[in-house]
Amino acid sequence: MNVPQVTAVPRRVAIVGASGYTGGELLRLLLGHRMVSVEHVFALTSAGRRVDAIFPRFAHVTPLSFEPYTADAACTSEVVFVSLPSGESMRVVPELLERNKKVIDLAGDFRLTDAAVYEQFYRRPHAATGLLGTAVYGLPEIKRDQIREARFVTNPGCYPTSILLPLIPLVKEGIVEHRNIGITSLSGVSGAGRSSSVEMSFAEVNESVRAYKVGVHQHTPEIRQILQEATGHEVSFTFVPHLLPLTRGISTTIIAPVADRVTEDEIRSVYEKWYGSEPFVRVSPASVPEIKNVVNTNYIDIGFHLNTGDRTITVLSTIDNLVKGAAGQAVQNMNLMLGFPESEGLQ
Amino acid sequence: MNVPQVTAVPRRVAIVGASGYTGGELLRLLLGHRMVSVEHVFALTSAGRRVDAIFPRFAHVTPLSFEPYTADAACTSEVVFVSLPSGESMRVVPELLERNKKVIDLAGDFRLTDAAVYEQFYRRPHAATGLLGTAVYGLPEIKRDQIREARFVTNPGCYPTSILLPLIPLVKEGIVEHRNIGITSLSGVSGAGRSSSVEMSFAEVNESVRAYKVGVHQHTPEIRQILQEATGHEVSFTFVPHLLPLTRGISTTIIAPVADRVTEDEIRSVYEKWYGSEPFVRVSPASVPEIKNVVNTNYIDIGFHLNTGDRTITVLSTIDNLVKGAAGQAVQNMNLMLGFPESEGLQ
Amino acid sequence: MNVPQVTAVPRRVAIVGASGYTGGELLRLLLGHRMVSVEHVFALTSAGRRVDAIFPRFAHVTPLSFEPYTADAACTSEVVFVSLPSGESMRVVPELLERNKKVIDLAGDFRLTDAAVYEQFYRRPHAATGLLGTAVYGLPEIKRDQIREARFVTNPGCYPTSILLPLIPLVKEGIVEHRNIGITSLSGVSGAGRSSSVEMSFAEVNESVRAYKVGVHQHTPEIRQILQEATGHEVSFTFVPHLLPLTRGISTTIIAPVADRVTEDEIRSVYEKWYGSEPFVRVSPASVPEIKNVVNTNYIDIGFHLNTGDRTITVLSTIDNLVKGAAGQAVQNMNLMLGFPESEGLQ
Amino acid sequence: MNVPQVTAVPRRVAIVGASGYTGGELLRLLLGHRMVSVEHVFALTSAGRRVDAIFPRFAHVTPLSFEPYTADAACTSEVVFVSLPSGESMRVVPELLERNKKVIDLAGDFRLTDAAVYEQFYRRPHAATGLLGTAVYGLPEIKRDQIREARFVTNPGCYPTSILLPLIPLVKEGIVEHRNIGITSLSGVSGAGRSSSVEMSFAEVNESVRAYKVGVHQHTPEIRQILQEATGHEVSFTFVPHLLPLTRGISTTIIAPVADRVTEDEIRSVYEKWYGSEPFVRVSPASVPEIKNVVNTNYIDIGFHLNTGDRTITVLSTIDNLVKGAAGQAVQNMNLMLGFPESEGLQ
Repeated sequence: MNVPQVTAVPRRVAIVGASGYTGGELLRLLLGHRMVSVEHVFALTSAGRRVDAIFPRFAHVTPLSFEPYTADAACTSEVVFVSLPSGESMRVVPELLERNKKVIDLAGDFRLTDAAVYEQFYRRPHAATGLLGTAVYGLPEIKRDQIREARFVTNPGCYPTSILLPLIPLVKEGIVEHRNIGITSLSGVSGAGRSSSVEMSFAEVNESVRAYKVGVHQHTPEIRQILQEATGHEVSFTFVPHLLPLTRGISTTIIAPVADRVTEDEIRSVYEKWYGSEPFVRVSPASVPEIKNVVNTNYIDIGFHLNTGDRTITVLSTIDNLVKGAAGQAVQNMNLMLGFPESEGLQ
Repeated sequence: MNVPQVTAVPRRVAIVGASGYTGGELLRLLLGHRMVSVEHVFALTSAGRRVDAIFPRFAHVTPLSFEPYTADAACTSEVVFVSLPSGESMRVVPELLERNKKVIDLAGDFRLTDAAVYEQFYRRPHAATGLLGTAVYGLPEIKRDQIREARFVTNPGCYPTSILLPLIPLVKEGIVEHRNIGITSLSGVSGAGRSSSVEMSFAEVNESVRAYKVGVHQHTPEIRQILQEATGHEVSFTFVPHLLPLTRGISTTIIAPVADRVTEDEIRSVYEKWYGSEPFVRVSPASVPEIKNVVNTNYIDIGFHLNTGDRTITVLSTIDNLVKGAAGQAVQNMNLMLGFPESEGLQ
Repeated sequence: MNVPQVTAVPRRVAIVGASGYTGGELLRLLLGHRMVSVEHVFALTSAGRRVDAIFPRFAHVTPLSFEPYTADAACTSEVVFVSLPSGESMRVVPELLERNKKVIDLAGDFRLTDAAVYEQFYRRPHAATGLLGTAVYGLPEIKRDQIREARFVTNPGCYPTSILLPLIPLVKEGIVEHRNIGITSLSGVSGAGRSSSVEMSFAEVNESVRAYKVGVHQHTPEIRQILQEATGHEVSFTFVPHLLPLTRGISTTIIAPVADRVTEDEIRSVYEKWYGSEPFVRVSPASVPEIKNVVNTNYIDIGFHLNTGDRTITVLSTIDNLVKGAAGQAVQNMNLMLGFPESEGLQ
Repeated sequence: MNVPQVTAVPRRVAIVGASGYTGGELLRLLLGHRMVSVEHVFALTSAGRRVDAIFPRFAHVTPLSFEPYTADAACTSEVVFVSLPSGESMRVVPELLERNKKVIDLAGDFRLTDAAVYEQFYRRPHAATGLLGTAVYGLPEIKRDQIREARFVTNPGCYPTSILLPLIPLVKEGIVEHRNIGITSLSGVSGAGRSSSVEMSFAEVNESVRAYKVGVHQHTPEIRQILQEATGHEVSFTFVPHLLPLTRGISTTIIAPVADRVTEDEIRSVYEKWYGSEPFVRVSPASVPEIKNVVNTNYIDIGFHLNTGDRTITVLSTIDNLVKGAAGQAVQNMNLMLGFPESEGLQ
């Protein structure tokens, strides 16, 4: 049984860019949230059409239709989720902030603080450099207090979420060395969004696996920046993302040298101290995280194996890239910003 | 937003056979239900172990442990879901009924009313023939009133659910002829339960498809019996189930001769009359049902195409075999039996 | 061991439209064929690029590059395979025929003999109506003698291959009635070609199944025409194709009323008589055909079940849509046209 | 065109343990080989049954039946492939060697030279310790000359094949450092053999991914031993295997610190020098290896990316675990042992 505490008057929220996979997931979660009401769903090419014409699974679930985006319409809501592709959100966010909206941006446009790094990895100049560094990085387990006070949250990338949560405590507490960390991440295809490329067609993805953007993935500087910010250390690592033949989920495997004399108990204690009371982090030293255990949930599962002979640790994590890696974490951030119970709408 | 009406005191329920896929799904749904409390989860080989040791996805979600089944323990609950394999539920149900429990049986043991037919298709003698015919067939759209009054409900099979809901109105209203109906159903593998056979191993199922039990599937007499009972007609059909390389979902394709002069509008009216106000039936003549739109939901999606040249109709339906085809429909039945809102716990 | 008989001088062949899935498969088969030499591979958008730049699996296998198509270049070859999309082959084939090439067309442009039916189902006017009816339908088991003499062969569609081979003998020999035949076919996605649509993207196809073009699929009139031509009977049937989450293979399930007093032995005899000495037809009344047994082969597997109670037969067949359903059958046709052993290059 | 050179009298070969996935693949390859004749296929539980009763894809392909194993029967062949599970091959191999057969063992029993390490990782004592160290490790690219002279070859493990081929040249030529090498391998499920465990059932493997045997996989000491033997260096690495939802293929990602001043050109030269004329190694610095390009082939594809900032290299490789990782490499070894063209039967 799941006994709710219900708010008197629901708070109004809007989604900009609601016709992609992340937008659809956000809508699903917000429709089940007991303290908010989804007022607007904005979409470009689908504007004017019912949500269930684009996503038939919403038939009988919501009568909403997609609207063409205008700031005026969006500003009747209190909180605006921006679920646009990177490069587009920076066109929309500045006016929303000026007009005092609470903004949660799920794109990559405001995660990096350095415009030059943004340009290097996203391959376009930044259009709102004045706002760089003004958003709170929405990783609740690391930045909960700032998020509570924030009007502008930049939601973490899916890969960084799966990497930073297991890695930050180990770096900060001196468990792992700060160099020669190898990170291999495996992602389902929904992470790439609704795609019409041959490359993402079923026949090309199925029964195969491929690494991509090796050495140049735009999440690399995001991981680097937040690791340093959260731990005070510059950390040298190599990040290799892979595309898997499955729809949802990320599995990350980190191999890192450990400091001398570190024991398994010590690692367990570190995680217990950092995450023992976190609602959405499950650390299980005994078992290996699997994607299927976190799909459709806001959990991150973490496991590890200490290789005492070679003095390395293998850390494993899994998340649902559309939930903890995107829409779920965005709702978690909204709950913090509005003073709601942190798990509302996420169970 | 989803504003709940909460009951004062939760009603106690138990699950017998909770460690399979259907049992796990039932547990998931009941844990999210606001008017019941799951008191017992019984399992044989997993008895004594925590639920999250068997299903790691329940970590942090429930502290329950599997118990060895005893009727005494089960009888502290008001409603008992029996989610055992066919052949085992008939050993358990009689005592529960004697002790005045409300029973929802998800196995196939009490769906057929004729012991000889049971023996022919299930390949074992029935152990509780005195109870045959005493259970209400739990297809709410067809038997809602009887279910409300029932103490003993036999939950429909997954294939029959996907076939009977689209077909009964067409037969009853004289849209289709009563012979030469061809039914092809495609099911994900979770329908076969947690399996340790080579045949159900990934390498054997993946990148293939196979028809199975052609002409001898135990759901054939169930479909026949309920069709006749619900429509008053003996209907001659051929049912061919297939196993697909996906986890959840059933897609059924029915090809049937139509009566002369039937029009598309007429068919649409029939479905509107039968299902227009049903919470979990979505009829969409314009679009083709797909499994992905119903996965993890209690909906059945129905579509059809009238082939005027050859005077046949193609009827298509999709369900999630573990939800509308099993656990979700069982919860829907419980809601009716206990006087709860029919959709509670299913949205 | 596989002892070959090798021809002295290889015969020259060309492929027009070699950069799609069927073209690639054709290339693979022809490169392994001991009596032909692939002289040209033509492709539009990939012209000028090496084959292994488009299909990395051909690295080290062939040094060929794609050329822009010209009739002059093609005409240095003796046999031209046209593996263009339907609608494009009819622009290319006429000149090749005029210039006395042997042509095997894998598109749908020359299968139908009636221009009006072509226009209705392919939704475009036919550009070479004078050639309609001049091609031999390349189903070797049914038209072997004509194919041997042919200069112009239209290769059958993938679905029709899987349907006509099991069905023609049953219709011709009076086993099944000529009406109320229901045909459900399930196809892997490679049948749709290399696609850049959202609809065929991994995330949309995976973990789902969908019927499509119900009642309007362009293979329907092809099946109808050839059934009538081969059996002398007009046959009324309903054909429902489905898309499956797998790459290769078609599984077809036919449900048909049987004539009175037909026995299983009789059916077995019919198939034995028709296909007992066929190199690529395997009829197995005992077992159920599965896609995985025919993938990467030129076999069609056929099985059946006689439902004596309801007087229907269920006939099941499987093929690899890219081999027996396209490229393999094209090679089989070439072998016949050139007087080679029929199985050369197909084992 | 593929012009063969045919041997006069085929050489006789036998397969012990022919009913598993590797055995079936070996049979498929050997049936297409022009210089050998498969005399015996031995299997335990399937003894007495036709091969096509167990593997229907072999219907019409071979009339062979499985025989119960006896050394006498096996010894009528010249070469015996032992494709038994590890732990069983060591019961069979000694007598075959005593009786002067050429043996290619695909199990893990004779790869390690140290009985204690074998016992630690395979969790059983070794039953033929006297033979440890007597087999040639059958990695043709590294040990071609010894294999040519060998009577006893131990075929490499699938993971080691995918790891050693890209890594040995880099270690030997001083490109990478000898410590802090992280190796993540992703394998399709056929690598685990025909399995009847719940864990390998479709519903458990599909839409998920899991690391397994982290730190204790039996291929770890094999990689360590051969790396040291082939390079003269003790190399410290961490190996993490993962199970993927696909049938065939391994994708390996190696992240290693590079020596100062190493350039991309240098690495390219090293690979060119080592593998430039290898028939089954394709090094492509420009593109990323994908499993689909090597499935059903004996190729290993290798790619790499030099991360100059962090001084690491990412090396990627893909193989088909059943071909280059098992049966194909075994045939390649046989070709060397018998003086056949190395690629015979593998194209």
